[in-house]
Amino acid sequence: MLDSKYGDQLFLGVDGGGSKCRVRLEGRGVSIEMVTGPANPFQDIAEAQHSIVSAAKGALAKAGLAENALSSVIVAAGLAGINVPATDAAMSAWDHPFQALKLTTDIHIACLGAHGGHEGAVMIVGTGTVGYSRANAKELMLGAHGFPHGDRGSGAWLGLEAVKAALLHLDELGPSTTLLSSIEHHFGCAGLSVIERLHGAKSCDYAKLAPLVFAAADAGDAVAQDLIDTAALYLSHMAGRLLDHGAPSLVLMGGLARRITPYMADDVTSKIVAAQGSPEDGALILARSVFDSLAA
Amino acid sequence: MLDSKYGDQLFLGVDGGGSKCRVRLEGRGVSIEMVTGPANPFQDIAEAQHSIVSAAKGALAKAGLAENALSSVIVAAGLAGINVPATDAAMSAWDHPFQALKLTTDIHIACLGAHGGHEGAVMIVGTGTVGYSRANAKELMLGAHGFPHGDRGSGAWLGLEAVKAALLHLDELGPSTTLLSSIEHHFGCAGLSVIERLHGAKSCDYAKLAPLVFAAADAGDAVAQDLIDTAALYLSHMAGRLLDHGAPSLVLMGGLARRITPYMADDVTSKIVAAQGSPEDGALILARSVFDSLAA
Repeated sequence: MLDSKYGDQLFLGVDGGGSKCRVRLEGRGVSIEMVTGPANPFQDIAEAQHSIVSAAKGALAKAGLAENALSSVIVAAGLAGINVPATDAAMSAWDHPFQALKLTTDIHIACLGAHGGHEGAVMIVGTGTVGYSRANAKELMLGAHGFPHGDRGSGAWLGLEAVKAALLHLDELGPSTTLLSSIEHHFGCAGLSVIERLHGAKSCDYAKLAPLVFAAADAGDAVAQDLIDTAALYLSHMAGRLLDHGAPSLVLMGGLARRITPYMADDVTSKIVAAQGSPEDGALILARSVFDSLAA
Repeated sequence: MLDSKYGDQLFLGVDGGGSKCRVRLEGRGVSIEMVTGPANPFQDIAEAQHSIVSAAKGALAKAGLAENALSSVIVAAGLAGINVPATDAAMSAWDHPFQALKLTTDIHIACLGAHGGHEGAVMIVGTGTVGYSRANAKELMLGAHGFPHGDRGSGAWLGLEAVKAALLHLDELGPSTTLLSSIEHHFGCAGLSVIERLHGAKSCDYAKLAPLVFAAADAGDAVAQDLIDTAALYLSHMAGRLLDHGAPSLVLMGGLARRITPYMADDVTSKIVAAQGSPEDGALILARSVFDSLAA
């Protein structure tokens, strides 16, 4: 039924982030996935465009289709960083090789995929934090502000705060915490040498320390527990705002979602449901809606 | 008296930091200052060595001395970043062109200069924070951990925390604060566009926002006041530890010293005295002590 409606139309769903670009090509009886390099246009616009085109070409080749079929593909791309106005403007001006290109945020397609195209809310708690709610045809986005000024409650935030606490302890200017020894062990060095290892550290480097915070809290470390409680309180507030926006349910995603949920407030965790589909599924739902609006 | 003791000996005092290298050449009746580029070996070891040699050569030229007089100069250099063990080791292995080179931290020479070579404590509250105390022939260093994991209470810390508070307000996930509008005004943009301006921001960029925090607090903003109180409490604790180490008095330096002092605890601010001399003065005191030990 669906296939006949869309005939020979090709669709590409793109989930673009700071470390990779994941796509799925659908139509003409095929369903092909492909992963290429980073596609965060806020970080690097040329690289993002290159990753998307490479992924599309790769998927077409795998499907046995010629490269000139690019101009027959309707693409919907959810991209990290596109919430920044200038980045959105620059990407919208792209002279792309596709039949049509719908640009949106990575969190929008994640929400569409998680709720099967229906309204709902999602939060991604991984290296960064972002919340998104789509209800009554309106969207609300929270967080996604970047590191170190944003991403409160994220893995990077927990890791950075753990380092701060460890260094305060080292100076005897803050409470004693086992985080110092666990961070020293992580880096294989002691005391001020930890600072060397952190020279030029990025959000993903700090996020690698987040598991140490959960381990320390599990072992009874009060400083680590306080960091987790602070993160969970912020995430509960964010979840509350997303639900108040009108979303009937919430999907939590990201590497820390499972670990942080038990510390969040019951009135929001009771609304958490499992995801129906992936961000690429969401992007493909959006790509088909582009077809529908072109056909209408 | 001093001159006869040191004969024709040349001394160079070096104060090296992340933005510039300030030196003073003394001896043979001259006193010549020179400023060159960055000299923070933790950030760039080759650049730091180049800045120090360039400054030394420049000062010799100004004094009408030949470049080969480099090998007749006793140098004492206080360098930012040398508190990191690997940086200290790398700089100590330098095949330098001087008669002798004594390496120490920038805060050590600041302390020697501030207290005229006598024991005492110093705190630098600028873009970063560092505390140092020299008493009973022992030294204690606090802070100097770098940004964003360290430098609590500094200008960079205040600026970063101000941005965090503004973004929480923007998301309605934190208390209302005039810091949002003052940061928007600072960057000449509104809302999420602030994030674009902060892309790749360094500690010095965040430190430029610190005056906005003081202005907001002066105008009654509770969030800004809370940030200043948090900074002042940390700095008071640091000052307390430096004085407890045995230092009879404390010198506060750096761009924020004057602004933050009124918020600090009375029991530590009552011990604050004016600096007797500059970090270059301190480096020259150290350089002469190298001569004394060589002569002994």
